[in-house]
Amino acid sequence: MKVQSETAQAPDLRAMAHAMRFLSMDAIVRAEDGHPGTPLGGADIATALFSQALKYDPKVPDWPDRDRFVHSAGHGSMLLYSALHLAGYDKIDMAQIKAFRVLGSHTAGHPEFDIQAGIETTTGPLGQGIANAVGMAVAERILNHRFGDGIVDHYTYAYTGDGCLMEGIAAEVIALAGHLKLGKLIWLWDDNQMTDDGPTDQAVSENQQIRFENNGWHVQSVDGHDAQAVAAAIAVAKGDPRPSMIACRTLIGFGIPRIQNDRAAHGGKITKQDTDAARANLEWPYAPFEIPQHIYDAWGVAGQSGAKARAAWQARVDAMDPQDRAEWDRVMAGKLPEGWQQTIREAKQRFVAENTPRPGIQASGEMLSALAECIPELISGAPDLEAATKHKRQLAPFTASDRGGRYIHYGVREHAMGAMMNGMTVHGGLVSMGTTFLVFSDYMRHTLRMAALMRIPGLFVFSHDSIGIGKNGPTHQPVEYLASLRAFPNMWTIRPADAVEMAEAWELGLHHREGPTAIIASRQPLDVLRGGAGSENRTARGAYVLAEAADGARRVTLIGTGSEVAVALKAREVLQAKGIPTAVVSMPCWELFEAQDRAYRDAVLPANTVRVAVEAAVRLGWDRYIGPEGAFIGMEGFGASGDYPDLYRHFGITPEAVAAAAEARL
Amino acid sequence: MKVQSETAQAPDLRAMAHAMRFLSMDAIVRAEDGHPGTPLGGADIATALFSQALKYDPKVPDWPDRDRFVHSAGHGSMLLYSALHLAGYDKIDMAQIKAFRVLGSHTAGHPEFDIQAGIETTTGPLGQGIANAVGMAVAERILNHRFGDGIVDHYTYAYTGDGCLMEGIAAEVIALAGHLKLGKLIWLWDDNQMTDDGPTDQAVSENQQIRFENNGWHVQSVDGHDAQAVAAAIAVAKGDPRPSMIACRTLIGFGIPRIQNDRAAHGGKITKQDTDAARANLEWPYAPFEIPQHIYDAWGVAGQSGAKARAAWQARVDAMDPQDRAEWDRVMAGKLPEGWQQTIREAKQRFVAENTPRPGIQASGEMLSALAECIPELISGAPDLEAATKHKRQLAPFTASDRGGRYIHYGVREHAMGAMMNGMTVHGGLVSMGTTFLVFSDYMRHTLRMAALMRIPGLFVFSHDSIGIGKNGPTHQPVEYLASLRAFPNMWTIRPADAVEMAEAWELGLHHREGPTAIIASRQPLDVLRGGAGSENRTARGAYVLAEAADGARRVTLIGTGSEVAVALKAREVLQAKGIPTAVVSMPCWELFEAQDRAYRDAVLPANTVRVAVEAAVRLGWDRYIGPEGAFIGMEGFGASGDYPDLYRHFGITPEAVAAAAEARL
Repeated sequence: MKVQSETAQAPDLRAMAHAMRFLSMDAIVRAEDGHPGTPLGGADIATALFSQALKYDPKVPDWPDRDRFVHSAGHGSMLLYSALHLAGYDKIDMAQIKAFRVLGSHTAGHPEFDIQAGIETTTGPLGQGIANAVGMAVAERILNHRFGDGIVDHYTYAYTGDGCLMEGIAAEVIALAGHLKLGKLIWLWDDNQMTDDGPTDQAVSENQQIRFENNGWHVQSVDGHDAQAVAAAIAVAKGDPRPSMIACRTLIGFGIPRIQNDRAAHGGKITKQDTDAARANLEWPYAPFEIPQHIYDAWGVAGQSGAKARAAWQARVDAMDPQDRAEWDRVMAGKLPEGWQQTIREAKQRFVAENTPRPGIQASGEMLSALAECIPELISGAPDLEAATKHKRQLAPFTASDRGGRYIHYGVREHAMGAMMNGMTVHGGLVSMGTTFLVFSDYMRHTLRMAALMRIPGLFVFSHDSIGIGKNGPTHQPVEYLASLRAFPNMWTIRPADAVEMAEAWELGLHHREGPTAIIASRQPLDVLRGGAGSENRTARGAYVLAEAADGARRVTLIGTGSEVAVALKAREVLQAKGIPTAVVSMPCWELFEAQDRAYRDAVLPANTVRVAVEAAVRLGWDRYIGPEGAFIGMEGFGASGDYPDLYRHFGITPEAVAAAAEARL
Repeated sequence: MKVQSETAQAPDLRAMAHAMRFLSMDAIVRAEDGHPGTPLGGADIATALFSQALKYDPKVPDWPDRDRFVHSAGHGSMLLYSALHLAGYDKIDMAQIKAFRVLGSHTAGHPEFDIQAGIETTTGPLGQGIANAVGMAVAERILNHRFGDGIVDHYTYAYTGDGCLMEGIAAEVIALAGHLKLGKLIWLWDDNQMTDDGPTDQAVSENQQIRFENNGWHVQSVDGHDAQAVAAAIAVAKGDPRPSMIACRTLIGFGIPRIQNDRAAHGGKITKQDTDAARANLEWPYAPFEIPQHIYDAWGVAGQSGAKARAAWQARVDAMDPQDRAEWDRVMAGKLPEGWQQTIREAKQRFVAENTPRPGIQASGEMLSALAECIPELISGAPDLEAATKHKRQLAPFTASDRGGRYIHYGVREHAMGAMMNGMTVHGGLVSMGTTFLVFSDYMRHTLRMAALMRIPGLFVFSHDSIGIGKNGPTHQPVEYLASLRAFPNMWTIRPADAVEMAEAWELGLHHREGPTAIIASRQPLDVLRGGAGSENRTARGAYVLAEAADGARRVTLIGTGSEVAVALKAREVLQAKGIPTAVVSMPCWELFEAQDRAYRDAVLPANTVRVAVEAAVRLGWDRYIGPEGAFIGMEGFGASGDYPDLYRHFGITPEAVAAAAEARL
């Protein structure tokens, strides 16, 4: 397709785009850092979108039925900031544009989730944004099904570069979006045929049109510097029942002669000389950061129209059936329904009353069943591990033909699940949970990071948590994962010791609003250890004394998590039988323990006792709790394939080893 | 396409396949664990491959020019074990088949890398195997280019299920294999339209034929239960210059009536009743684990033919030019050329002599340049970050038209890079290194795990290592990654403090044969701190005293890594000026420090001194080195976008903070 950079178009659109270009390049020059290629190349696309297509009210950025726009090529963040500024988002005022990449500004190097600023999700790591968008589009359809067209009926747009499309996660979500026929999803591909390394044909041969069509997408190609053509294509895309991809052919770095259509445009440094040259080249008579009023006025039209649409929407909301309205308000506020904690308490009581060993993942599956009944906005998924993770299809699948389903068949696509869950969460209105084996959490690891960075909730259940899986062997035995998950700021990693702690972990995970929660579940059965469960959520303390020392002052503190708490309890029996007063501490969550006050922590783990920790995982991090004189009984390397009791003996994770380590230190 | 399960075919092929089926199901029943679906469904495919196509000599499993076969659907490991047993690999004898999934056997739950057993790579985590195969096919072409058709000229086969094809990594390597026109790569897709969750159409809509063709592959479809048809398709695939995918339509769990073509076949339990029913169904008169001699004989033919081919190959090797022969022997033994360590020493001397600040990644790039000259088998890549990671195109690219290139344009595909590097490494003959930003190591994390699990080398340079990247912000500031990398068994994580330590890190990384090495590089410039570098590799100790306390016995030990060693040195000046004898320990590699003897460790980090660690990352793991009375100065959460000196001040990682923490503890 020929690039018609100078085709006739309404001059105001071209000028509106140039306003973005100069705001962007002036900000980048001022910051002495940033990626000019995308904002210069994509300005016409963004202008078409923000002025002709996107439904938004800049004065009410969190209007629930706004269209969502995800700038997935996050390195080109000035594209988003300049559009938001011109569109009238107060939080991105000119001072913020001038403070691009300055500590404390809202205009960070890469866009950071801030709905009030018009930033729908954090982007930068390539592929995450487009995948979040697919999750948003799923959320829209689910909520539309529940609350109707008058209340939820919006599009989700994503702006993608070549990088996002090359990442593996892209293939996962392109496949799913097509399979699920997410017709209100529209991707704008900035097809500039250039990446940081040079022309894309160094690494890409596939035809994107065929690729997307083969995945059930509607595809168009347009001149990405013709904003009217882009707007027209968006209008056509809206009329098609499939998700749409619009290939917008552009020149990277458009407008700066030195870098235009060159790899240097991607992230190369630009200077005042470049912006001067661009001003001459594009005939832009305005000073740096000067935007004439008529351009602001032109940019303001869409937002004013959005404000009217929002008022009409508000009238529809106000006219809702009161019960529906209450439910709508509740889910959009992220509040759980009355009674959910009663469900937790009942589960704990039942687990104690039944007193039967359950795999951790079985207990988790039972919690999901019970809570799915009382939390209608709970959406789950387990990439092709539905049976192994005890989903047991309590929930009907969400499909192209049934938007009322609440179980998503992700296929064998863990990374897609994580990113789509994040998309659902930032969309609002849903409680998103996902389950897979702990080893496969590596495939979706960066989505956990993004949730933690955004401080958004997300309930991840990672099962088959250690050598306890047995015969499947070391590929499937996660020995280093607890440490790597505990390294995340803002995330809670909870490894329950029994079904009671599992119920408490679910309560915490659903309660945690400032970051994601990873619940780690065993495959092998765990006895109920918390006989007198009580109503207190003891897991919320992070660690607690499960069995105090008997027959004298405590001399030994054994600390365990998950399936190894039972090992510690048996070791305690050995030591007590020898007259050594020994306590067992269950420590399901380090992060929550660290949040307790010093007195509590010292009481649970007294420094003047011999401390021995036991966990079927690597030692990293445990020295903090056992001190220099303590011992750690766990894994020193990867696991092995074999029957799991054999493995525990083989690797020396036994009550006898724990007791011996304690005795040796007395 | 109609499945013609009972079409006429040479009866010996069908019987040969049935031998695989019954070995597999008998072993799974005996183990009371395992995945029957794949070995039963894929037996005809494997029979076609092992008897009609694959070039191998079971008596010399490590013959360098053998065809490679990767069983990517690793859960169906009995497919591989039964084929290897029947094909005559001594290490997989009948005792091993009977010991399937027993601790200590070579027949683990998932195949574990063991060339003597015929297992070319560890598989199980879906997508890894097919991606390894692409790396093997690259290695074959590079070595073919160097040593000629007589010495290196083999095919690489991979057996893939639906799961592998759904994973994002599949899309990355399908794109690359087609782009690079790897014509000697042949994938056999077990197209059974069934996964653990049920029919694939629950999650897949795309047409695989179109998908692969659009990526430059040659595609055929055959009845996967017609071994002659599969063999014929392989012959056609060999004649096509593109990589080939052969869709083999099969029935999962073929032969056991209860589970055939049912999701229960994937990993469901089977019993003696099932194997009895299969014996009746398939008219198999033999007892469990009984294979009649005529079937062993039929299976042995291919290996005998392979032995002849190997003898002819050996004659060609023996006739090589002596210099070529020495080089061939050297690279296949994994030995580095004479003089490589001299290159390291010279670099260290030059860094000291020049005494100019260098970004860590700049120093790494210079090491790459120097070492690439003296190590012709060194292959590098940096997914679309060639400039930022200072590759500077010292190496010509490996392309479809130039197999002599040594820089692989992976595109924006980190996961592909990691898995392809592992494939190149297990192939043999190459030294594989790859570079990306540390934050993107998450995308390829599981490939690091696979390298560590296989105990294979692999040099990974992860750049832009902390808040020192500054304005790009928290999405690109890896604060939790050092901890998560240190959690891996068998991997060395090295974070050099200056260019001298960077040179030493490269020496260690190239030297390390029992696992991968991750070298962590800064973006910001680092002063040379090791003025009198000397010839000793001090980094090899893991930690060492960089600056001893002056004017008295040491009272304070400051410990730093990477860019924060300079912070510690400045803090030392503050403390020494106050009359407090203070040492600085540079601690680039925890794993190597742990390998030192107790006396050395105690001398470097004496417990009777106040210990303060400083690292621009989270605390996890540091308590081991600072003890309960020590202090850690680092990050408590994610970073921020801003100028990097501002960030260091903002997050309190300063010489003053380190000195104050030490003083407060004296």
